[in-house]
Amino acid sequence: MTRIGSCLITVTIAGGAVGLMAAASSRSADTPSTFITKIPAGYRDWKLISVAHEEANLNSFAAVLGNEAAVKAYRDGRLPFPDGAIIASLHYRFVPSEENNKAFGQAQSFVAGDPTNVQFMIKDSKAYASTGGWAFGHFNQDGTVAGEAVMKTCSPCHAKASRDSVFTKYSR
Amino acid sequence: MTRIGSCLITVTIAGGAVGLMAAASSRSADTPSTFITKIPAGYRDWKLISVAHEEANLNSFAAVLGNEAAVKAYRDGRLPFPDGAIIASLHYRFVPSEENNKAFGQAQSFVAGDPTNVQFMIKDSKAYASTGGWAFGHFNQDGTVAGEAVMKTCSPCHAKASRDSVFTKYSR
Repeated sequence: MTRIGSCLITVTIAGGAVGLMAAASSRSADTPSTFITKIPAGYRDWKLISVAHEEANLNSFAAVLGNEAAVKAYRDGRLPFPDGAIIASLHYRFVPSEENNKAFGQAQSFVAGDPTNVQFMIKDSKAYASTGGWAFGHFNQDGTVAGEAVMKTCSPCHAKASRDSVFTKYSR
Repeated sequence: MTRIGSCLITVTIAGGAVGLMAAASSRSADTPSTFITKIPAGYRDWKLISVAHEEANLNSFAAVLGNEAAVKAYRDGRLPFPDGAIIASLHYRFVPSEENNKAFGQAQSFVAGDPTNVQFMIKDSKAYASTGGWAFGHFNQDGTVAGEAVMKTCSPCHAKASRDSVFTKYSR
């Protein structure tokens, strides 16, 4: 896994992240105390929040899932998210599907290729007050946690999101 | 909802579907007895199978979900799918995200826009033997079922999929 990114919307270090880190503004930079270092159990079974695609260097396909607390908050239109809410973003390579294109009779179909990384946000408004009430984590495809250089980019970027540091909107 | 498509990978009537229907080959065309006319309960809570994107006229973003029987079969690598398996494809418009692009500092981000339709496949190898063991359904965004002209395109296209009439592969 060579892809490196900020949390839940992924950016490349070259280019994007420099600007993002400069924009950390009033929020404290992430520190190891706000990093998620263990993958939340059972996340692959969680309910769908929405999907996303990033072009450019990332060329990623994301499925965004939430635990019960996160999905309930989304469905209730509740902001800020309650403590205990966890959002997961599962990233895959964005690849053309030869089989689907053949069925369609033209090149138009893209599917999820190999998994690249999975990212999490965990809400605890007190424990993670310095980073907007969220801890952030980025796990490589082999399950290892990303290095500090990557992890530090999460919170400053998410501070730009207008809905309690969360970019992804719920798709009904 | 003006978008019209075949089931679970969506095609436009103009162009694609004509070719698809001509390719019905050895499989009987769908008949009303193999159409799904009622939306399966609780599908929005089902587990994620994978994601997909169609370019061209469709420009759609899909999240593919499965009921317990379908997801278990995927995870176990079991083919054909067991009777009772249901696969749902939730389609949305594929739209750029201004907010995400602003955070990235460049135009690269696409998200799910308004929902357009939801499609289902239900496995019953005896009841739907004439269409590969699957019933197919396409529901417009307002919950109404698609007309027969659309519904008849599902099975002939899915007959081209190499894994028990299912195009979507499981993303771990």
